[in-house]
Amino acid sequence: MTSEGARLVIDVPAWVGEAAVPGRAFRDDQDKMALVIRLAEENMARGDGGPFGAAVFEIGSGKVVAAGVNRVVQGSNSVLHAEMIALMFAQQRVGSFTLRSTGRPAHELVTSCEPCAMCLGATLWSGVTRLVIGAEREDAMAVGFEEGPVFPESYAYIAARGVETVRGIRRLEAARLLRDYRDRGGLVYNPDAPPPGAR
Amino acid sequence: MTSEGARLVIDVPAWVGEAAVPGRAFRDDQDKMALVIRLAEENMARGDGGPFGAAVFEIGSGKVVAAGVNRVVQGSNSVLHAEMIALMFAQQRVGSFTLRSTGRPAHELVTSCEPCAMCLGATLWSGVTRLVIGAEREDAMAVGFEEGPVFPESYAYIAARGVETVRGIRRLEAARLLRDYRDRGGLVYNPDAPPPGAR
Repeated sequence: MTSEGARLVIDVPAWVGEAAVPGRAFRDDQDKMALVIRLAEENMARGDGGPFGAAVFEIGSGKVVAAGVNRVVQGSNSVLHAEMIALMFAQQRVGSFTLRSTGRPAHELVTSCEPCAMCLGATLWSGVTRLVIGAEREDAMAVGFEEGPVFPESYAYIAARGVETVRGIRRLEAARLLRDYRDRGGLVYNPDAPPPGAR
Repeated sequence: MTSEGARLVIDVPAWVGEAAVPGRAFRDDQDKMALVIRLAEENMARGDGGPFGAAVFEIGSGKVVAAGVNRVVQGSNSVLHAEMIALMFAQQRVGSFTLRSTGRPAHELVTSCEPCAMCLGATLWSGVTRLVIGAEREDAMAVGFEEGPVFPESYAYIAARGVETVRGIRRLEAARLLRDYRDRGGLVYNPDAPPPGAR
Protein backbone atom coordinates (compact mmCIF):
# COMPACT_ATOMS: atom_id res chain seq x y z
CA MET A 1 0.00 0.00 0.00
CA THR A 2 1.50 3.32 -1.01
CA SER A 3 1.41 6.60 0.91
CA GLU A 4 -1.50 7.51 -1.34
CA GLY A 5 -3.61 4.85 0.29
CA ALA A 6 -5.63 2.15 -1.41
CA ARG A 7 -7.98 2.76 -4.30
CA LEU A 8 -10.84 0.83 -5.82
CA VAL A 9 -12.39 1.85 -9.12
CA ILE A 10 -15.94 0.95 -10.13
CA ASP A 11 -16.67 1.30 -13.83
CA VAL A 12 -20.05 1.19 -15.48
CA PRO A 13 -19.92 0.34 -19.18
CA ALA A 14 -20.64 3.20 -21.59
CA TRP A 15 -23.71 1.46 -23.05
CA VAL A 16 -25.49 1.77 -19.69
CA GLY A 17 -25.28 5.56 -19.81
CA GLU A 18 -26.36 5.53 -23.44
CA ALA A 19 -29.43 3.42 -22.68
CA ALA A 20 -30.30 5.37 -19.50
CA VAL A 21 -29.20 8.91 -20.27
CA PRO A 22 -29.08 10.95 -17.06
CA GLY A 23 -31.72 13.67 -17.17
CA ARG A 24 -34.01 11.81 -19.57
CA ALA A 25 -37.54 11.72 -18.19
CA PHE A 26 -39.73 8.62 -17.91
CA ARG A 27 -43.48 8.81 -17.51
CA ASP A 28 -44.53 6.13 -15.08
CA ASP A 29 -43.51 2.97 -13.24
CA GLN A 30 -44.19 0.84 -16.32
CA ASP A 31 -41.82 2.89 -18.47
CA LYS A 32 -39.15 3.06 -15.77
CA MET A 33 -39.35 -0.69 -15.26
CA ALA A 34 -39.13 -1.29 -19.01
CA LEU A 35 -35.87 0.66 -18.96
CA VAL A 36 -34.25 -1.33 -16.16
CA ILE A 37 -35.40 -4.63 -17.66
CA ARG A 38 -33.75 -3.55 -20.91
CA LEU A 39 -30.54 -2.81 -18.99
CA ALA A 40 -30.69 -6.26 -17.39
CA GLU A 41 -31.30 -7.89 -20.75
CA GLU A 42 -28.48 -6.06 -22.49
CA ASN A 43 -26.11 -6.78 -19.60
CA MET A 44 -26.81 -10.46 -20.03
CA ALA A 45 -26.62 -10.34 -23.84
CA ARG A 46 -23.24 -8.56 -23.77
CA GLY A 47 -21.85 -10.90 -21.13
CA ASP A 48 -21.17 -7.94 -18.86
CA GLY A 49 -22.84 -9.44 -15.78
CA GLY A 50 -25.92 -10.97 -14.24
CA PRO A 51 -29.50 -10.34 -15.43
CA PHE A 52 -30.23 -7.41 -13.15
CA GLY A 53 -30.77 -3.71 -13.85
CA ALA A 54 -31.72 -0.76 -11.67
CA ALA A 55 -31.96 3.00 -11.82
CA VAL A 56 -32.56 5.96 -9.53
CA PHE A 57 -35.10 8.54 -10.72
CA GLU A 58 -36.24 11.87 -9.41
CA ILE A 59 -39.80 11.54 -8.20
CA GLY A 60 -42.04 14.02 -9.97
CA SER A 61 -39.90 14.86 -12.99
CA GLY A 62 -39.22 11.17 -13.68
CA LYS A 63 -35.67 12.03 -14.70
CA VAL A 64 -32.95 9.38 -14.58
CA VAL A 65 -30.26 10.24 -12.04
CA ALA A 66 -28.09 7.13 -12.44
CA ALA A 67 -28.40 3.55 -13.61
CA GLY A 68 -26.67 0.31 -12.75
CA VAL A 69 -26.27 -3.25 -13.92
CA ASN A 70 -24.87 -6.27 -12.13
CA ARG A 71 -21.05 -6.35 -12.27
CA VAL A 72 -20.24 -8.92 -9.57
CA VAL A 73 -18.25 -11.37 -11.66
CA GLN A 74 -16.67 -8.86 -14.05
CA GLY A 75 -15.67 -6.55 -11.20
CA SER A 76 -14.53 -9.35 -8.85
CA ASN A 77 -16.72 -7.63 -6.28
CA SER A 78 -19.79 -9.18 -4.67
CA VAL A 79 -21.08 -5.72 -3.69
CA LEU A 80 -21.66 -4.71 -7.30
CA HIS A 81 -25.34 -5.54 -7.59
CA ALA A 82 -27.26 -3.32 -10.00
CA GLU A 83 -29.02 -1.47 -7.17
CA MET A 84 -25.78 -0.72 -5.33
CA ILE A 85 -24.24 0.76 -8.46
CA ALA A 86 -27.33 2.86 -9.22
CA LEU A 87 -27.45 4.19 -5.64
CA MET A 88 -23.72 4.96 -5.40
CA PHE A 89 -23.61 6.73 -8.75
CA ALA A 90 -26.79 8.67 -7.91
CA GLN A 91 -25.19 9.93 -4.71
CA GLN A 92 -22.03 10.81 -6.63
CA ARG A 93 -24.16 12.83 -9.07
CA VAL A 94 -26.09 14.58 -6.30
CA GLY A 95 -22.91 15.03 -4.25
CA SER A 96 -24.34 13.80 -0.96
CA PHE A 97 -24.50 10.65 1.17
CA THR A 98 -28.27 10.99 1.18
CA LEU A 99 -30.77 11.45 -1.63
CA ARG A 100 -33.25 12.85 0.91
CA SER A 101 -32.55 16.56 1.30
CA THR A 102 -34.91 19.37 2.13
CA GLY A 103 -35.64 21.55 -0.88
CA ARG A 104 -34.45 18.97 -3.40
CA PRO A 105 -36.49 16.41 -5.32
CA ALA A 106 -37.22 13.08 -3.65
CA HIS A 107 -35.85 9.95 -5.31
CA GLU A 108 -36.92 6.40 -6.06
CA LEU A 109 -35.06 3.19 -6.88
CA VAL A 110 -36.53 1.05 -9.66
CA THR A 111 -35.12 -2.46 -9.86
CA SER A 112 -35.76 -5.37 -12.19
CA CYS A 113 -35.70 -7.79 -9.25
CA GLU A 114 -36.50 -7.57 -5.55
CA PRO A 115 -33.44 -6.33 -3.64
CA CYS A 116 -31.36 -8.81 -1.69
CA ALA A 117 -30.62 -8.17 1.99
CA MET A 118 -27.61 -6.00 1.19
CA CYS A 119 -29.42 -3.91 -1.40
CA LEU A 120 -32.49 -3.48 0.81
CA GLY A 121 -30.29 -2.12 3.58
CA ALA A 122 -28.52 0.13 1.09
CA THR A 123 -31.91 1.36 -0.16
CA LEU A 124 -32.78 2.57 3.33
CA TRP A 125 -29.40 4.32 3.85
CA SER A 126 -29.48 5.90 0.39
CA GLY A 127 -32.35 8.22 1.22
CA VAL A 128 -34.69 7.11 -1.57
CA THR A 129 -38.31 7.30 -0.47
CA ARG A 130 -39.79 4.83 -2.94
CA LEU A 131 -38.77 1.35 -4.10
CA VAL A 132 -40.28 -0.16 -7.26
CA ILE A 133 -39.81 -3.90 -7.81
CA GLY A 134 -40.21 -6.09 -10.92
CA ALA A 135 -39.45 -9.77 -10.35
CA GLU A 136 -39.94 -11.14 -6.84
CA ARG A 137 -37.52 -12.85 -4.50
CA GLU A 138 -39.10 -16.23 -5.33
CA ASP A 139 -38.43 -15.67 -9.04
CA ALA A 140 -34.72 -15.12 -8.37
CA MET A 141 -34.47 -18.04 -5.96
CA ALA A 142 -36.27 -20.30 -8.44
CA VAL A 143 -33.31 -19.97 -10.79
CA GLY A 144 -30.74 -20.40 -8.01
CA PHE A 145 -29.87 -16.88 -6.87
CA GLU A 146 -29.60 -16.35 -3.13
CA GLU A 147 -31.47 -13.31 -1.78
CA GLY A 148 -30.25 -13.28 1.81
CA PRO A 149 -32.04 -12.58 5.08
CA VAL A 150 -35.05 -10.50 3.99
CA PHE A 151 -38.36 -11.00 5.78
CA PRO A 152 -41.81 -9.38 5.66
CA GLU A 153 -40.69 -7.41 8.75
CA SER A 154 -37.85 -5.94 6.69
CA TYR A 155 -40.37 -4.11 4.50
CA ALA A 156 -42.36 -2.97 7.53
CA TYR A 157 -39.10 -1.63 8.96
CA ILE A 158 -38.22 0.47 5.93
CA ALA A 159 -41.83 1.62 5.50
CA ALA A 160 -41.75 2.97 9.05
CA ARG A 161 -38.67 4.97 8.02
CA GLY A 162 -40.20 6.56 4.96
CA VAL A 163 -39.58 4.09 2.12
CA GLU A 164 -42.70 3.04 0.24
CA THR A 165 -42.49 -0.25 -1.69
CA VAL A 166 -44.38 -0.95 -4.93
CA ARG A 167 -44.33 -4.49 -6.35
CA GLY A 168 -45.36 -6.42 -9.41
CA ILE A 169 -44.41 -3.92 -12.12
CA ARG A 170 -43.75 -6.00 -15.28
CA ARG A 171 -43.02 -8.97 -13.03
CA LEU A 172 -43.57 -11.59 -15.72
CA GLU A 173 -41.11 -9.95 -18.12
CA ALA A 174 -38.53 -9.46 -15.38
CA ALA A 175 -38.89 -13.05 -14.15
CA ARG A 176 -38.64 -14.43 -17.68
CA LEU A 177 -35.28 -12.75 -18.03
CA LEU A 178 -33.98 -14.58 -14.97
CA ARG A 179 -35.08 -17.91 -16.45
CA ASP A 180 -33.44 -17.00 -19.76
CA TYR A 181 -30.18 -16.38 -17.94
CA ARG A 182 -30.32 -19.79 -16.30
CA ASP A 183 -31.34 -21.51 -19.53
CA ARG A 184 -28.33 -20.00 -21.31
CA GLY A 185 -26.06 -21.44 -18.62
CA GLY A 186 -25.30 -18.10 -16.93
CA LEU A 187 -23.12 -18.29 -13.82
CA VAL A 188 -25.11 -18.07 -10.59
CA TYR A 189 -22.47 -16.24 -8.54
CA ASN A 190 -23.36 -17.16 -4.98
CA PRO A 191 -20.48 -17.24 -2.48
CA ASP A 192 -19.91 -20.95 -3.04
CA ALA A 193 -19.84 -20.61 -6.82
CA PRO A 194 -16.64 -21.67 -8.52
CA PRO A 195 -14.80 -18.77 -10.20
CA PRO A 196 -15.51 -18.25 -13.92
CA GLY A 197 -13.57 -20.75 -15.98
CA ALA A 198 -13.26 -23.21 -13.11
CA ARG A 199 -15.16 -26.49 -13.06
CA MET B 1 -21.41 10.41 -19.51
CA THR B 2 -18.53 9.82 -21.91
CA SER B 3 -18.02 6.88 -24.22
CA GLU B 4 -15.75 5.49 -21.53
CA GLY B 5 -18.72 5.05 -19.24
CA ALA B 6 -19.12 6.24 -15.70
CA ARG B 7 -16.52 5.79 -13.00
CA LEU B 8 -16.60 5.91 -9.23
CA VAL B 9 -13.41 5.90 -7.18
CA ILE B 10 -13.25 4.70 -3.58
CA ASP B 11 -10.17 5.82 -1.70
CA VAL B 12 -8.99 4.54 1.65
CA PRO B 13 -6.64 6.93 3.45
CA ALA B 14 -2.99 5.90 3.62
CA TRP B 15 -2.98 5.71 7.41
CA VAL B 16 -5.43 2.79 7.28
CA GLY B 17 -2.97 0.67 5.34
CA GLU B 18 -0.17 1.75 7.66
CA ALA B 19 -2.14 0.76 10.76
CA ALA B 20 -3.40 -2.50 9.23
CA VAL B 21 -0.57 -3.61 6.97
CA PRO B 22 -1.77 -6.33 4.60
CA GLY B 23 0.00 -9.59 5.39
CA ARG B 24 0.66 -8.75 9.03
CA ALA B 25 -0.52 -11.59 11.27
CA PHE B 26 -2.72 -11.19 14.35
CA ARG B 27 -2.97 -13.86 17.02
CA ASP B 28 -6.55 -14.05 18.16
CA ASP B 29 -9.97 -12.36 18.15
CA GLN B 30 -8.92 -10.00 20.94
CA ASP B 31 -5.93 -8.72 18.98
CA LYS B 32 -7.87 -8.44 15.74
CA MET B 33 -10.63 -6.53 17.48
CA ALA B 34 -8.09 -4.23 19.11
CA LEU B 35 -6.85 -3.38 15.62
CA VAL B 36 -10.26 -2.51 14.17
CA ILE B 37 -11.18 -0.49 17.27
CA ARG B 38 -7.96 1.46 16.78
CA LEU B 39 -8.94 2.09 13.15
CA ALA B 40 -12.33 3.34 14.28
CA GLU B 41 -10.75 5.58 16.90
CA GLU B 42 -8.21 7.05 14.52
CA ASN B 43 -10.88 7.60 11.86
CA MET B 44 -12.87 9.61 14.35
CA ALA B 45 -9.82 11.50 15.68
CA ARG B 46 -8.72 12.48 12.17
CA GLY B 47 -12.22 13.54 11.16
CA ASP B 48 -12.12 11.04 8.28
CA GLY B 49 -15.47 9.44 9.06
CA GLY B 50 -17.69 7.70 11.57
CA PRO B 51 -16.41 5.65 14.53
CA PHE B 52 -16.36 2.28 12.77
CA GLY B 53 -13.50 0.02 11.70
CA ALA B 54 -13.36 -3.44 10.12
CA ALA B 55 -10.89 -5.81 8.55
CA VAL B 56 -10.81 -9.09 6.68
CA PHE B 57 -8.32 -11.68 7.88
CA GLU B 58 -7.24 -15.08 6.63
CA ILE B 59 -8.45 -17.70 9.08
CA GLY B 60 -5.54 -19.77 10.33
CA SER B 61 -2.64 -17.48 9.51
CA GLY B 62 -4.41 -14.47 11.04
CA LYS B 63 -3.01 -12.26 8.25
CA VAL B 64 -4.73 -8.99 7.38
CA VAL B 65 -6.13 -9.05 3.83
CA ALA B 66 -7.74 -5.60 3.81
CA ALA B 67 -9.09 -3.04 6.26
CA GLY B 68 -11.78 -0.39 6.12
CA VAL B 69 -13.09 2.60 8.00
CA ASN B 70 -16.35 4.47 7.64
CA ARG B 71 -16.23 6.96 4.76
CA VAL B 72 -19.94 7.77 4.27
CA VAL B 73 -19.83 11.52 4.73
CA GLN B 74 -16.37 12.12 3.28
CA GLY B 75 -17.13 9.96 0.24
CA SER B 76 -20.71 11.26 -0.25
CA ASN B 77 -21.65 7.60 -0.40
CA SER B 78 -23.91 5.84 2.09
CA VAL B 79 -22.52 2.44 1.03
CA LEU B 80 -19.09 3.21 2.45
CA HIS B 81 -19.44 1.54 5.83
CA ALA B 82 -16.19 0.13 7.23
CA GLU B 83 -17.28 -3.46 6.57
CA MET B 84 -18.18 -2.76 2.92
CA ILE B 85 -14.78 -1.20 2.28
CA ALA B 86 -12.92 -4.05 3.98
CA LEU B 87 -14.88 -6.67 1.99
CA MET B 88 -14.53 -4.91 -1.38
CA PHE B 89 -10.80 -4.32 -0.96
CA ALA B 90 -10.28 -7.90 0.24
CA GLN B 91 -11.96 -9.20 -2.91
CA GLN B 92 -9.85 -6.84 -5.00
CA ARG B 93 -6.73 -8.24 -3.35
CA VAL B 94 -7.81 -11.86 -3.81
CA GLY B 95 -9.08 -11.13 -7.32
CA SER B 96 -12.43 -12.86 -6.95
CA PHE B 97 -16.06 -12.06 -6.17
CA THR B 98 -15.92 -14.64 -3.40
CA LEU B 99 -13.48 -15.13 -0.55
CA ARG B 100 -14.62 -18.75 -0.32
CA SER B 101 -12.58 -20.79 -2.80
CA THR B 102 -11.50 -24.39 -2.67
CA GLY B 103 -7.80 -24.73 -1.95
CA ARG B 104 -7.44 -21.19 -0.59
CA PRO B 105 -7.59 -19.98 3.00
CA ALA B 106 -10.98 -19.20 4.50
CA HIS B 107 -11.64 -15.63 5.60
CA GLU B 108 -13.30 -13.77 8.46
CA LEU B 109 -14.64 -10.25 8.89
CA VAL B 110 -13.85 -8.53 12.19
CA THR B 111 -15.87 -5.39 12.85
CA SER B 112 -15.91 -2.89 15.71
CA CYS B 113 -19.72 -2.80 15.63
CA GLU B 114 -22.48 -5.21 14.66
CA PRO B 115 -23.12 -4.97 10.91
CA CYS B 116 -26.19 -3.08 9.70
CA ALA B 117 -28.63 -4.77 7.33
CA MET B 118 -26.58 -3.82 4.26
CA CYS B 119 -23.29 -5.01 5.71
CA LEU B 120 -24.79 -8.26 7.00
CA GLY B 121 -26.07 -9.04 3.51
CA ALA B 122 -22.68 -8.11 2.06
CA THR B 123 -20.98 -10.38 4.62
CA LEU B 124 -22.95 -13.34 3.30
CA TRP B 125 -22.21 -12.54 -0.38
CA SER B 126 -18.52 -11.90 0.31
CA GLY B 127 -17.74 -15.51 1.08
CA VAL B 128 -16.31 -14.97 4.56
CA THR B 129 -17.09 -17.89 6.85
CA ARG B 130 -16.75 -16.11 10.18
CA LEU B 131 -18.01 -12.78 11.53
CA VAL B 132 -16.53 -11.29 14.72
CA ILE B 133 -18.45 -8.45 16.38
CA GLY B 134 -17.41 -5.86 18.99
CA ALA B 135 -20.16 -3.40 19.95
CA GLU B 136 -23.76 -4.57 19.58
CA ARG B 137 -26.61 -3.14 17.56
CA GLU B 138 -28.10 -1.65 20.75
CA ASP B 139 -24.85 0.20 21.46
CA ALA B 140 -24.98 1.88 18.05
CA MET B 141 -28.70 2.65 18.28
CA ALA B 142 -28.21 4.10 21.77
CA VAL B 143 -26.13 6.90 20.25
CA GLY B 144 -28.52 7.45 17.33
CA PHE B 145 -27.18 5.27 14.50
CA GLU B 146 -29.77 3.33 12.54
CA GLU B 147 -28.95 -0.35 12.00
CA GLY B 148 -31.68 -1.34 9.57
CA PRO B 149 -33.81 -4.48 9.31
CA VAL B 150 -31.71 -7.11 11.09
CA PHE B 151 -33.47 -9.75 13.17
CA PRO B 152 -32.40 -12.84 15.13
CA GLU B 153 -33.54 -14.84 12.08
CA SER B 154 -30.98 -12.94 9.99
CA TYR B 155 -28.16 -14.60 11.93
CA ALA B 156 -29.82 -18.00 11.71
CA TYR B 157 -30.05 -17.47 7.95
CA ILE B 158 -26.36 -16.73 7.47
CA ALA B 159 -25.36 -19.50 9.91
CA ALA B 160 -27.28 -21.98 7.77
CA ARG B 161 -25.18 -20.76 4.83
CA GLY B 162 -21.82 -21.23 6.49
CA VAL B 163 -21.15 -17.96 8.33
CA GLU B 164 -20.39 -18.38 12.03
CA THR B 165 -20.94 -15.31 14.22
CA VAL B 166 -18.91 -14.50 17.35
CA ARG B 167 -20.01 -11.63 19.60
CA GLY B 168 -18.87 -9.62 22.56
CA ILE B 169 -15.18 -9.24 21.73
CA ARG B 170 -14.02 -6.05 23.46
CA ARG B 171 -17.62 -4.87 23.42
CA LEU B 172 -17.18 -2.30 26.21
CA GLU B 173 -14.25 -0.59 24.46
CA ALA B 174 -16.03 -0.59 21.13
CA ALA B 175 -19.24 0.78 22.62
CA ARG B 176 -17.36 3.49 24.53
CA LEU B 177 -15.98 4.74 21.23
CA LEU B 178 -19.50 5.20 19.88
CA ARG B 179 -20.46 7.25 22.92
CA ASP B 180 -17.28 9.33 22.55
CA TYR B 181 -18.27 10.13 18.98
CA ARG B 182 -21.68 11.32 20.06
CA ASP B 183 -20.26 13.28 22.98
CA ARG B 184 -17.88 15.11 20.63
CA GLY B 185 -20.85 16.12 18.47
CA GLY B 186 -20.05 13.75 15.59
CA LEU B 187 -22.55 13.72 12.73
CA VAL B 188 -24.97 10.79 12.86
CA TYR B 189 -25.40 10.36 9.12
CA ASN B 190 -28.73 8.62 8.81
CA PRO B 191 -30.69 9.26 5.59
CA ASP B 192 -32.57 12.15 7.15
CA ALA B 193 -29.41 13.82 8.45
CA PRO B 194 -28.70 17.27 7.10
CA PRO B 195 -25.56 17.44 4.95
CA PRO B 196 -22.35 18.51 6.73
CA GLY B 197 -22.32 22.26 7.18
CA ALA B 198 -26.10 22.55 6.87
CA ARG B 199 -28.31 23.45 9.83
